[in-house]
Amino acid sequence: MHILQTLSEMFTLTDYAGTMVKKILIVLIAGLLMPQIDLKGEDGYRLWLRYEMIADQQRLTSYRKTIQGWHVSGSTATMQVIRNEMRIALGGLLGKSIPESDNVNMNGLVILGKASSPSLAEFKLTEKVTRVGGEGYLIFKTVSKGKNVIVITGNEDVGVLYGMFHFLRLLQTNTDISQLSVESSPRIQRRILNHWDNLDRTVERGYAGFSIWDWHKLPGYMEDRYTDYARANASIGINGAVVTNVNANALALTPDYLKKFAALANVFRPYGIRIYLTARFSAPIDIGGLKTADPLDENVKKWWKDKAAEIYQHIPDFGGFLVKANSEGQPGPQNYKRSHADGANMLADAVRPFNGIVMWRAFVYDNNVPDDRAKQAYSEFEPLDGSFHDNVLVQVKNGAVDFQPREPYHPLFGSMPKTPLMMEFQITQEYLGFSTHLVFLPSFYSEVLNSDTQVKGKGSTVSKIVDGSLERHRLSGMAGVANIGTDRNWCGHPFAQSNWYGFGRLAWDPAVTPATIAEEWTRMTFSNDEDVVKTINTMILASHEAAVNYMTPLGLHHIMGYDHHYGPGPWVKDKGRADWTSVYYHKADSLGVGFDRTASGSNALGQYAEGARNEFLLPQCPDKYLLWFHHLPWDHKMRSGRTLWDELCYKYDEGVSAVRQMQQSWQSLSNKVDIDRFKQVKMLLAIQEEEAVRWRNSCILYFQTFSSRPIPTGLTKPEHNLEYYENLHFPFAPGTRPKW
Amino acid sequence: MHILQTLSEMFTLTDYAGTMVKKILIVLIAGLLMPQIDLKGEDGYRLWLRYEMIADQQRLTSYRKTIQGWHVSGSTATMQVIRNEMRIALGGLLGKSIPESDNVNMNGLVILGKASSPSLAEFKLTEKVTRVGGEGYLIFKTVSKGKNVIVITGNEDVGVLYGMFHFLRLLQTNTDISQLSVESSPRIQRRILNHWDNLDRTVERGYAGFSIWDWHKLPGYMEDRYTDYARANASIGINGAVVTNVNANALALTPDYLKKFAALANVFRPYGIRIYLTARFSAPIDIGGLKTADPLDENVKKWWKDKAAEIYQHIPDFGGFLVKANSEGQPGPQNYKRSHADGANMLADAVRPFNGIVMWRAFVYDNNVPDDRAKQAYSEFEPLDGSFHDNVLVQVKNGAVDFQPREPYHPLFGSMPKTPLMMEFQITQEYLGFSTHLVFLPSFYSEVLNSDTQVKGKGSTVSKIVDGSLERHRLSGMAGVANIGTDRNWCGHPFAQSNWYGFGRLAWDPAVTPATIAEEWTRMTFSNDEDVVKTINTMILASHEAAVNYMTPLGLHHIMGYDHHYGPGPWVKDKGRADWTSVYYHKADSLGVGFDRTASGSNALGQYAEGARNEFLLPQCPDKYLLWFHHLPWDHKMRSGRTLWDELCYKYDEGVSAVRQMQQSWQSLSNKVDIDRFKQVKMLLAIQEEEAVRWRNSCILYFQTFSSRPIPTGLTKPEHNLEYYENLHFPFAPGTRPKW
Repeated sequence: MHILQTLSEMFTLTDYAGTMVKKILIVLIAGLLMPQIDLKGEDGYRLWLRYEMIADQQRLTSYRKTIQGWHVSGSTATMQVIRNEMRIALGGLLGKSIPESDNVNMNGLVILGKASSPSLAEFKLTEKVTRVGGEGYLIFKTVSKGKNVIVITGNEDVGVLYGMFHFLRLLQTNTDISQLSVESSPRIQRRILNHWDNLDRTVERGYAGFSIWDWHKLPGYMEDRYTDYARANASIGINGAVVTNVNANALALTPDYLKKFAALANVFRPYGIRIYLTARFSAPIDIGGLKTADPLDENVKKWWKDKAAEIYQHIPDFGGFLVKANSEGQPGPQNYKRSHADGANMLADAVRPFNGIVMWRAFVYDNNVPDDRAKQAYSEFEPLDGSFHDNVLVQVKNGAVDFQPREPYHPLFGSMPKTPLMMEFQITQEYLGFSTHLVFLPSFYSEVLNSDTQVKGKGSTVSKIVDGSLERHRLSGMAGVANIGTDRNWCGHPFAQSNWYGFGRLAWDPAVTPATIAEEWTRMTFSNDEDVVKTINTMILASHEAAVNYMTPLGLHHIMGYDHHYGPGPWVKDKGRADWTSVYYHKADSLGVGFDRTASGSNALGQYAEGARNEFLLPQCPDKYLLWFHHLPWDHKMRSGRTLWDELCYKYDEGVSAVRQMQQSWQSLSNKVDIDRFKQVKMLLAIQEEEAVRWRNSCILYFQTFSSRPIPTGLTKPEHNLEYYENLHFPFAPGTRPKW
Repeated sequence: MHILQTLSEMFTLTDYAGTMVKKILIVLIAGLLMPQIDLKGEDGYRLWLRYEMIADQQRLTSYRKTIQGWHVSGSTATMQVIRNEMRIALGGLLGKSIPESDNVNMNGLVILGKASSPSLAEFKLTEKVTRVGGEGYLIFKTVSKGKNVIVITGNEDVGVLYGMFHFLRLLQTNTDISQLSVESSPRIQRRILNHWDNLDRTVERGYAGFSIWDWHKLPGYMEDRYTDYARANASIGINGAVVTNVNANALALTPDYLKKFAALANVFRPYGIRIYLTARFSAPIDIGGLKTADPLDENVKKWWKDKAAEIYQHIPDFGGFLVKANSEGQPGPQNYKRSHADGANMLADAVRPFNGIVMWRAFVYDNNVPDDRAKQAYSEFEPLDGSFHDNVLVQVKNGAVDFQPREPYHPLFGSMPKTPLMMEFQITQEYLGFSTHLVFLPSFYSEVLNSDTQVKGKGSTVSKIVDGSLERHRLSGMAGVANIGTDRNWCGHPFAQSNWYGFGRLAWDPAVTPATIAEEWTRMTFSNDEDVVKTINTMILASHEAAVNYMTPLGLHHIMGYDHHYGPGPWVKDKGRADWTSVYYHKADSLGVGFDRTASGSNALGQYAEGARNEFLLPQCPDKYLLWFHHLPWDHKMRSGRTLWDELCYKYDEGVSAVRQMQQSWQSLSNKVDIDRFKQVKMLLAIQEEEAVRWRNSCILYFQTFSSRPIPTGLTKPEHNLEYYENLHFPFAPGTRPKW
């Protein structure tokens, strides 16, 4: 009772009052001191929406002065969502309940509403708000009838929602809000997560447990997680979710499943998120009783039209279809000697009456092993430019092979000017260490988006193609293959959340820098402590380069374990087809290593516009793309002055060193980060270090059998021989493809 | 600020003091009102170990007076576990931090320690404590050097741990502790959860998500959930876990996996829990490079001896093997014309040097469809009585078919007096509605345990056979097939936790009544509010009978959906083998329904001892077992006075009504139960009601095709025809068997 004595002494209360105070305080303090036994800790579930009380007292005081109440205009479902978020966010951040107010003439009020709502009439926003479009928003500070207020507004409810999350982000990152004048709208229209989730709840290339969609219990049992998923996405501007795998099962289009999707759509709608589905091209046969799925067959067309109408009955704002056709065994129009455009257009016509779209993937390769698989998507799609209907987007992976640790941008970007091309990034770390490696992907996304195709002269960046501005397309889109699963922290690794976050931020604005994303995310997810921010930012901004170095430096690619893609496998050969092996891609021999994609080789380089192509030629080709485009002798002289062989060894070693540096950095935060996540990340970094060493040793030993050169002195020698690494097996590595 | 005005008015404080009070209160109440933004809610993760502050003020005051400090003697890992649990439990329950004390001469002290520890020397416990054995404990109130203290002690650390959880249970259930004199020890030695968890993290017959064992990330990444799993089990006396599926994969015995199991064993050890593994009988071939797995082959024997030694290198307290052999396609000794005893004894010899045991399952059926599958386990095992080595337990399912909603006890109980028989219950609801049906299983477990085999005269209950007392066996055991998965609330359904809880309690003491278990669990899991306790207890104690009624009343069995076992399937026929169909079991025809297991039929009844057998004969056979043992005409006159057909219809309808009654009862608690679980259970009960109706309608319509009799007037008519129900398909119902 020491504190109580002190308090009553301090206030020199009368005996009676003092006794009363004591009694009241006993009850209240008992409540306050109640230990946190809910095991809540920082389990990562809250993502970047933690809303912990602001630790900086000065900032807190200033915010509390600026924000004394809030008013939400309107009562739609989205406005209710805004109310709920404001209540919990401000209560958490400011450490006290901030009242919702009916009185709009109040100092320190935050007013949220559509520009057209009566509460905002006095601000005469009509003209100004028009500029930000359907999803954009304005946030500004102003004086209304003598009172200082903050206005968050947009043309539509969802704009206000996005504006609110922007405003909350400012508070979460402790930003000065004494001057506020924000105008923002998305540069890309369809900002979509692709879930490769199967109907049996396995997730292809999923490393965070299993599918968060509990199909069996849907639609009767609705988990809170569905709502929290929608909240998290809305907070970073994601407005669509393809909830089923591109390797699709037609049963997803049967009425039982449509009811399940509709239940999810109902949860997502107030958050501005639409549902999309993957369409298995053979569905008219699989579940429709037809004998063909030929896209030019009238019965097939009718079946899809009817199916689309049925889907819209269940989900009035259904977004449309994502299709993987004639790729890796999936059926498609080519089965009927029709083109990808024939297939896409037929589906596009089916959803057109309802304003639906079709996203048609360009990740294709047929059963004939090509001279260079990197060329195939271009070869098949470039000639089709101009033949797609106007509600079709062609969805192109960031690179021409397959989500490698690093790839040059896909040559289709810039090569189909008449077609809106959608970017497909992979957030889940299929080739980047699953969910145990800390790899910050916005660095890589930005590298791709900022690549200059030069198709219309310098400055024709990939981002200008994706956002549609280069060719003034009506539609634009960016997809990210989700890294979300049933793991409590959503993504398996606390830091993997940053890739989900960063994808959303870049889809809204491809110009946001990785450094900005890193800082925002760190402040919201961990702490605003400057040491923590600086240390974590340094760690994560270097992490992608580190992973590339210990996995596939200097442009090496596709040398991972077979099938599950876990760990190194440069020795993989003699599989079902040549382009599923590693030797096909690295082409190491006694003379050298690398894939010659110049005119003397596969000439994949010829698929790039001239300006860009020249930059990939020797000698100017950047080291990071060297072996992607060139087969070079082991003694090739590098920029560093070293031979190629020595440089390769050094790069692998640098990758390992960088991981060890991350471990040290993390250890320095032991008292500055909550114990739960500190321990988790520490364990994960230890795994990453071990696997980085395995990558380095495996690859150096393997390539040494060709180079016949010694490992440079000063570098650590592998502790096992090559045979040891070749004989490691991981029969149940997670995330492999579904068996059906 | 209304509350503050009221308070200051009420206490008529002086102005100054009043102002001070207000200021203090504003700060404190702001803290208290801080919104629960951690999304913690009551998500079920805490199970029955919630440790919420005691709401009954009188009880709280009394506890706070009685418990003013605690002292733990010793510093072993288990004692650290006890410290941690005492700290969070008392802090939560008593709403304030209760200090750990070094001073053992203090009023209101709870002293925890081994009877042999110096702190407890004065109590002279040596003789008394001997009686409770290695796992038992004493809890008593006494006066020590003039101070009132509570002593919790045992012979071993784990006894103290169990005693502590018993003591905490008393507090959690608001039990009067003014007089305390508890002496308890387990009646059954091996109290084990069987996890049917596969190496790919699917769970056979698992309905709460996927395996909590993240094999890929083990041993490097250790989840908090592993510790909380151990805590929960220890709190109910479970002391073993078989962490892999009985349909086993030999890879689990390779070094990579042994390291993963060892990591789990290290977490479990302080909680008194041992790891056991399933042994695939063909492992010497699968991973050992041998050509045979013949248990009498010297190389095979040596392989297993070496393997056992290797396992004990990793896990010094490894418990032993659980084996499913020559059943449902699993390999076994019969492949080599050896007996089950030959197989079991060979493995038993391998683990004997390390005090390991073998649990050999009696759930067998070979490829020849027998006249009555219910007879097969008995036929194969009864002749082997006396031939098993003394570290072998034969593990017998509670009934002779397969975990049906209700079964008479297995005739092997009482038929193998020379062999310790281990009980195998199923906690996961394979045949009882998966994780969406509220079915309280301790009612059924008790029904089985209290069944009287009469093999040594009246009173030869199944529980006396299982606990070994009837034949004075050295070993005893009870296994429960776990219902645990990755779902946040562990078991999928908030009420499914009660089956895990109840299994543990009954394994410790088979005499605990279902009513006691229900009340303990409800108080700890939901509330001590008398209305809540009464309402929930009434719901759950009637729930098993309800499920039996809407699924398989009057002794019907095995009429569920094929393969996945989801929903009704009385029409299932023409499958791979006759005893995988429903028609094999219900034998409905125009004359009647039921399986004649009397002497005129399969004579499975002959496997029971005479006294028990007689009770299953007509006319005395209880209604609940009627169609299990007898094929009876549709017009058979029932005890109720109705015909069998009418009674069947009434029973199905009663099942549905009982579910609706549960819905009403639950609704009455809308303001008395936290909103999160209230909503969850409400949704789940709605699903249960829908599925109960489907069961009723499907079965009545199906059996009506044989009975050709009308549904009795007054009962609801099915809203669809039989064809409708037969055509419902659930291709991705969860929990099916692994494909490898």
